[in-house]
Amino acid sequence: MEKIFIKDIAKFVGQEVEISAWVANHRSSGKIAFWHLRDGTGFVQAIVNESELSAEKASESKKISLESSVKVRGLVSKHPKKDEYEIQVKDFEFYQIADEYPIGKKEHGVDFLLDNRHLWLRSSRQWAVQRIRNTLIQATYRYMDENNFIKIDSPILTPSACEGTTELFEIDYFDTKAYLSQSGQLYIEAAIFAHNRVYDFGPVFRAEKSKTRRHLTEFWMMDAEMAFVDLEQNLQIQEELIRFMIKLVLEKNQNELAILERDIKPLENISKPFYKMNHSEAIKKLQALGSDIKDGEDLGGDDETMLTKQFDNPIFITNYPAKIKAFYMKRNASDQNLAECADLLAPEGYGEIIGGSQREDDYQVLLDRIKEHKLPQKDFEWYLDLRKYGSVPHGGFGFGLERIVGWVCGLEHVRETIPFPRTIYRLRP
Amino acid sequence: MEKIFIKDIAKFVGQEVEISAWVANHRSSGKIAFWHLRDGTGFVQAIVNESELSAEKASESKKISLESSVKVRGLVSKHPKKDEYEIQVKDFEFYQIADEYPIGKKEHGVDFLLDNRHLWLRSSRQWAVQRIRNTLIQATYRYMDENNFIKIDSPILTPSACEGTTELFEIDYFDTKAYLSQSGQLYIEAAIFAHNRVYDFGPVFRAEKSKTRRHLTEFWMMDAEMAFVDLEQNLQIQEELIRFMIKLVLEKNQNELAILERDIKPLENISKPFYKMNHSEAIKKLQALGSDIKDGEDLGGDDETMLTKQFDNPIFITNYPAKIKAFYMKRNASDQNLAECADLLAPEGYGEIIGGSQREDDYQVLLDRIKEHKLPQKDFEWYLDLRKYGSVPHGGFGFGLERIVGWVCGLEHVRETIPFPRTIYRLRP
Repeated sequence: MEKIFIKDIAKFVGQEVEISAWVANHRSSGKIAFWHLRDGTGFVQAIVNESELSAEKASESKKISLESSVKVRGLVSKHPKKDEYEIQVKDFEFYQIADEYPIGKKEHGVDFLLDNRHLWLRSSRQWAVQRIRNTLIQATYRYMDENNFIKIDSPILTPSACEGTTELFEIDYFDTKAYLSQSGQLYIEAAIFAHNRVYDFGPVFRAEKSKTRRHLTEFWMMDAEMAFVDLEQNLQIQEELIRFMIKLVLEKNQNELAILERDIKPLENISKPFYKMNHSEAIKKLQALGSDIKDGEDLGGDDETMLTKQFDNPIFITNYPAKIKAFYMKRNASDQNLAECADLLAPEGYGEIIGGSQREDDYQVLLDRIKEHKLPQKDFEWYLDLRKYGSVPHGGFGFGLERIVGWVCGLEHVRETIPFPRTIYRLRP
Repeated sequence: MEKIFIKDIAKFVGQEVEISAWVANHRSSGKIAFWHLRDGTGFVQAIVNESELSAEKASESKKISLESSVKVRGLVSKHPKKDEYEIQVKDFEFYQIADEYPIGKKEHGVDFLLDNRHLWLRSSRQWAVQRIRNTLIQATYRYMDENNFIKIDSPILTPSACEGTTELFEIDYFDTKAYLSQSGQLYIEAAIFAHNRVYDFGPVFRAEKSKTRRHLTEFWMMDAEMAFVDLEQNLQIQEELIRFMIKLVLEKNQNELAILERDIKPLENISKPFYKMNHSEAIKKLQALGSDIKDGEDLGGDDETMLTKQFDNPIFITNYPAKIKAFYMKRNASDQNLAECADLLAPEGYGEIIGGSQREDDYQVLLDRIKEHKLPQKDFEWYLDLRKYGSVPHGGFGFGLERIVGWVCGLEHVRETIPFPRTIYRLRP
């Protein structure tokens, strides 16, 4: 008899199999009990007919409780009409009868659920979210590998701030201070001179006191940097990558999307070209929609929501005013007041998922910017070096994994997108 | 004319192409100059014949310096006997003439090289190491995906220590204290109840004052946890994974291994079954080899070196005394003084690359261990919960990426295995 994962059950119709799983639900009707089993790879209904068990086992079966762990052996059958499978239990053995499970069918407050995140992860919606997150991660690695990117892990422990010293977590590092990285971008820029196209993908940190539905203090970011590209090529790669990621989710996670009751129409639009508008067009559109945003201002969270609700596919917003963007962004060739940059906003009210730009590649211009931004030049000497020894036109972008997961899953709040969310008030479990 | 990566040059013999690259080396002989170009994907020799250039270009070509960035256009030809390609330059354009490059052909001290890590990454040995690291990372993601593991990113910011509070980096977290994670294991154990097989792969931190060739304060670890497995199945998966990783390097990185002058015989042994011995056999063997290690003691770095020099393939050392292992390890069924565990040691003097074990799955036993180890029970309530609600036999392991890279590349010191190494004395660049 084969020991199988539930996901493979269709291959075993008419055969006896063994499954190890948890009881996600159970009910009984007379001498027949229905155990809804979950093994992490899928769900299956087990039918426990007392008359087919020994008296001892029949009695034991009544001890079942939610989340008990059990090994069952039985015959696999298929629903005559639907793509559903059942297992007629011949024998079973509990690994453990679970204590009364704290997460029930009643509504729980989000604080209670987050306090019990180690258990909440088991519920079907959370299971679906993490499976989709996993697909998005896998898709990223596949795309980067197939497109000649080399992974260069940037350091988390850094001696200084990448873009200024606010919102940084400080650490005692032996006899000095260190800071948790907000972005690996500057580090991986160094590696394009060795590898041409590189990326990192790891946790980054912001000590932001923001309590919005878009903010975590610890989240995963993928930074990519490419030598010899201009902004247009950069955006093309971003578009291809996001399309590849969403397509893999549509291919592998239809079941999970259904559990989340996600309308997949907007995801299916991903095959179409992304929208593109420049920052001043976006401002005009927002003003027409009733926002009080002024010319030259950055888009706030509410603006992004308002704007992206108008679209059914991601939108590139290009050429923000340089003064509201980071020091390392190159200026637009025809208007020095604009950054040669683009943010990618997810549609349906979700907003920014990628920020990217051409990087300033001229030593003197970059040095001037560092001074203008009052950044400590000493800490950027190594970064300036990259413009002394074979500087090249280059650009890159960074995506926030949790924001992409939130959009793809159609979630209200980013806190459900990561296994163990960290916010200003939450460090546990 | 096509713009190509050097790695693809073989497809363009007899055609004109455009390549953007850096000057890794150059020499001239009369009116002919030889530029050794590097674009991050490979190397190629460009032949610059003054008589085929305009007078202006011929003069410009003499400005060349090490690490200058250049775009060349020319005709691709193949060496008549060897698998080597050349490009006969028809035209070129410098992006930038590099300043005098600080890393030359003379020997540099390691501190100088590490101070210039942002440039040192370009040298061919460092390029090869990072390419091999990238393959090992990609292989890990592929193996885990193909074997039903779901990635569960464990948090870096944690409220308490996983295995005691020494060697932890402390952070000011708003109004409280947080610590940088030493391992995601306990967190991802929670997720096996949702997903069956899970893993994480991210940076971890040890505030160790060790200055050995095996230690970094920040390094990358992959933790895997599996429900319903015993130690034997656990070791089988580890063996398969490591074999898969090494095979992919042998398949994709022969050129890089040659640059590193790595003897690949020991890597080719990976197809053979790994060695296995228990801890007391290892002690006897070490004593016979002249170590002063005593029965029941843990293997030190020197012991691992001595022992593994005797082997040409990885070695599992099983069943260490429980008292020298972590609180969460299950005891051996036939001898409660032994942990149901194994470390995997790389051969050729490299030592530990994986630590793994069966995890204690009994609530009361685990609670007793937490008390024995004087760990704060309050901080482990959530971990104890996992033994209350459907506990199952389970196990897992963790690998240290840098140690694997060090072994595969045949490096003396782990500091070259990571793009930006962090040690007790080093936080820059």
